[in-house]
Amino acid sequence: MEKTGSDLLSLWFADGTNFPGQSNFRKRKQWMEKALAEVYDALPNATRMLIEYKFFEPAFYHTDLPDWGTAYLMATKLGEKAQVLIDLGHHPQSTNIEFIVAYLIDEGKLGGFHFNCRKYADDDLTVGSINPQELFLIYTELVAAELDPNTETDIAYMIDQSHNLKPKVEASIQSVCNLQKAYAKALLVDREALAAAQDAADLVEAESILQRAYETDVNPLLEQVRLEMGRDPHPLAAYRKSGYYEKISAARVGGESQGWA
Amino acid sequence: MEKTGSDLLSLWFADGTNFPGQSNFRKRKQWMEKALAEVYDALPNATRMLIEYKFFEPAFYHTDLPDWGTAYLMATKLGEKAQVLIDLGHHPQSTNIEFIVAYLIDEGKLGGFHFNCRKYADDDLTVGSINPQELFLIYTELVAAELDPNTETDIAYMIDQSHNLKPKVEASIQSVCNLQKAYAKALLVDREALAAAQDAADLVEAESILQRAYETDVNPLLEQVRLEMGRDPHPLAAYRKSGYYEKISAARVGGESQGWA
Amino acid sequence: MEKTGSDLLSLWFADGTNFPGQSNFRKRKQWMEKALAEVYDALPNATRMLIEYKFFEPAFYHTDLPDWGTAYLMATKLGEKAQVLIDLGHHPQSTNIEFIVAYLIDEGKLGGFHFNCRKYADDDLTVGSINPQELFLIYTELVAAELDPNTETDIAYMIDQSHNLKPKVEASIQSVCNLQKAYAKALLVDREALAAAQDAADLVEAESILQRAYETDVNPLLEQVRLEMGRDPHPLAAYRKSGYYEKISAARVGGESQGWA
Amino acid sequence: MEKTGSDLLSLWFADGTNFPGQSNFRKRKQWMEKALAEVYDALPNATRMLIEYKFFEPAFYHTDLPDWGTAYLMATKLGEKAQVLIDLGHHPQSTNIEFIVAYLIDEGKLGGFHFNCRKYADDDLTVGSINPQELFLIYTELVAAELDPNTETDIAYMIDQSHNLKPKVEASIQSVCNLQKAYAKALLVDREALAAAQDAADLVEAESILQRAYETDVNPLLEQVRLEMGRDPHPLAAYRKSGYYEKISAARVGGESQGWA
Repeated sequence: MEKTGSDLLSLWFADGTNFPGQSNFRKRKQWMEKALAEVYDALPNATRMLIEYKFFEPAFYHTDLPDWGTAYLMATKLGEKAQVLIDLGHHPQSTNIEFIVAYLIDEGKLGGFHFNCRKYADDDLTVGSINPQELFLIYTELVAAELDPNTETDIAYMIDQSHNLKPKVEASIQSVCNLQKAYAKALLVDREALAAAQDAADLVEAESILQRAYETDVNPLLEQVRLEMGRDPHPLAAYRKSGYYEKISAARVGGESQGWA
Repeated sequence: MEKTGSDLLSLWFADGTNFPGQSNFRKRKQWMEKALAEVYDALPNATRMLIEYKFFEPAFYHTDLPDWGTAYLMATKLGEKAQVLIDLGHHPQSTNIEFIVAYLIDEGKLGGFHFNCRKYADDDLTVGSINPQELFLIYTELVAAELDPNTETDIAYMIDQSHNLKPKVEASIQSVCNLQKAYAKALLVDREALAAAQDAADLVEAESILQRAYETDVNPLLEQVRLEMGRDPHPLAAYRKSGYYEKISAARVGGESQGWA
Repeated sequence: MEKTGSDLLSLWFADGTNFPGQSNFRKRKQWMEKALAEVYDALPNATRMLIEYKFFEPAFYHTDLPDWGTAYLMATKLGEKAQVLIDLGHHPQSTNIEFIVAYLIDEGKLGGFHFNCRKYADDDLTVGSINPQELFLIYTELVAAELDPNTETDIAYMIDQSHNLKPKVEASIQSVCNLQKAYAKALLVDREALAAAQDAADLVEAESILQRAYETDVNPLLEQVRLEMGRDPHPLAAYRKSGYYEKISAARVGGESQGWA
Repeated sequence: MEKTGSDLLSLWFADGTNFPGQSNFRKRKQWMEKALAEVYDALPNATRMLIEYKFFEPAFYHTDLPDWGTAYLMATKLGEKAQVLIDLGHHPQSTNIEFIVAYLIDEGKLGGFHFNCRKYADDDLTVGSINPQELFLIYTELVAAELDPNTETDIAYMIDQSHNLKPKVEASIQSVCNLQKAYAKALLVDREALAAAQDAADLVEAESILQRAYETDVNPLLEQVRLEMGRDPHPLAAYRKSGYYEKISAARVGGESQGWA
């Protein structure tokens, strides 16, 4: 970290077992605690350790850090410099991720995100491609924390996708634009009205306030922001016009592949 | 608790929300912490508080304590007298429950069980009726803790089922017998050989050791134990022969219903 | 049906079993076929039978018609007057429902919908409250069928929800408005451009075309349509202003409950 | 098929899409129908086509044949020589596979199996390693069909696993032994008593009959059968003693890997 100037040690462990009996859960837990403590003690000043969890795969019977609870437990035992990293594709189906976001923020333990998207398992699709409402609800929690003077967060935002059908740069541009949309919509939420509706237990109104923000077309706003920043308002079209893809494809030995092969 | 002579305060909260925006996650978390702390401070001496979690239902958007991580976090903040209670039907599909059991034992935070069974959600079927291997693997962790001189556990075992098709007493007898079988099989695991196979990374042998125990027919053993205790070796048959069901059915106004109606 | 003037026989069967061995799957299948055939033969002219499926609950081991495949098989054996009904909450997690919609339309076997919404199981929430993109994608298939001169559909649209926290009429207004939004957005999809992008295997463009329609704020359009129809452009606000709820609550013995209690 | 002397054309299609809008569901369905019909018409006499389905992966938005219903629909349109192949790892969580087995047998459309095991998704673990009761319940349906003089089946049994941690031959021996155990236990089910309990709606007794068979330790029986066939009664131990693994490892360039690398 010192050599590269990094201030984040981001750890994901593929460790786990494939069959009942293969290994001793409690020993493995203790080994993990010990190993992390050794690394934690060696962290340079002003750096953080982010601990990622994943429900399953590549291990198919158990994973050593399968959920936010295990990552949180480790991070809490280690100390203030250790936090939890959320990858959007690493949960059981129908897990309420925005709740975990809020929970970890409340504990000062949300350290970062691996953004991506999935319909089934750890599909690593373009962020925002499936169920974009979920991304908006996650950002609604992130913006709430930003707006709260009593909450401090320092969250590392990363994109972690695996595109084998889409051209990678185009998919990355889509991802960034979808994140900007979710963020912009979350900024539009009328927080005072929301708090009032919640206090009044007016479910319909509270939900409607979120819907109004979510249903707003924020593309014109984002285009204006990009213009004011001296950027092209339409990133994907600009990229396509740039001819960059054709240029690097031609330069690449063996032609145009940008995927796995 | 003092009046009834109870030494366990077992808490399950149906609390949660049904729609995005309905309530403030972080406020609810803080309310929960505060409420539990107030109750915790009032616990009589030599008693414990068990905190149960549930993935969903009756709340359909978020549940305040949806997983072991939230229950653990609460129990840890409260202190030594607070522990986690595991209900077998309260997890997302394919959760490795025996891993959670081992994890909580290792933290001294496993306080109790609600035994039941499910194929889909919180089905509350007869314990051991679906996937009895899972029950065996859970008991394998419980027995490992019993055998370890450095591990102290004090686990409250409860059955929490909802039978509307089977006669309730018969279903309860089945449940108890299935628990006895799982426990007996877990006692048969050759722990030394298992540890040796694990140390040698011999996956096939380690798995086979568990299988040998699981595949043993422990019914003759259990019948012998019951005989030595002066009990009928076949509890279900004995109950059926006893005529108890017919007696209480006749005594019940409106006939033989033992189900929901 | 003749007495009530109904032309739709909509069937949902709670039938199934709770435990392995409880019943014979194949006998039950044959009984179902026979029973449905008897009813089918008695259908009045110009009527249809809609067969609904459900993954689980109230049966917890197996359900006699758990998926579209079983309902389709029954409907196909019966004949042209039998079709399948889709309830949005009756699928395993992450099932691609819009694909089933397209499949059944292609077979002439989509007969109707029970609209509702869920995050977990058959939660019966306000339609469109969770993952509204899914509703849009379903309507995208429905509109494609409407636009295709070679496709005939006759689909019965029903709302099937269970509101115990929200006032029921308000929740129903929300549901209808959310359905209108999904339909309006699906009408905005540029079908020619979509087909061209699909033919060119331009995934990014094809996805973007759907996103442009989905991200359009159709509320102003819907308000205009309502005005042109002589309706209040804001149905929920209009209902709240109407005082209807207060009136019927006052008229109801025991006060204002509109929920389960 | 003629050249190799094969009488089974076993088809699994990885086809599907990763993003909404990527392709046209109905066109793809029609293409699939057309393509399969062309192949079906070219099938040699006395051969069969087996159509496999898979819920997801490698496609992450939709799969062209995601469930038994789609495979059944294709097979039915094609004709008698087309049947469905079930891979145990290709279903949504908690799907009742034994019900699908019974359903397809009843339709004369069960053509074959890919045996393997999973806890999460298509994990391709050793068959019988997780939830062996499910395998027993599947065999209970298979044996019921064998015993029924009015049912004809011709089922191709295949093992389809992917072992990267266990030595492959050992894992295959385990798989075969686990299949033999499931089959032997299913043969032990008292079919007459089961039918009687089912007719009497005695759920507890019906379930107990299956449990008695499942809990029987069939290892001694299988050892005796192997002895009578002139085989070693303990296949795994015999293989380990044979030195075959050491021999082929030594013969392999670069040493002992039997896994992915």
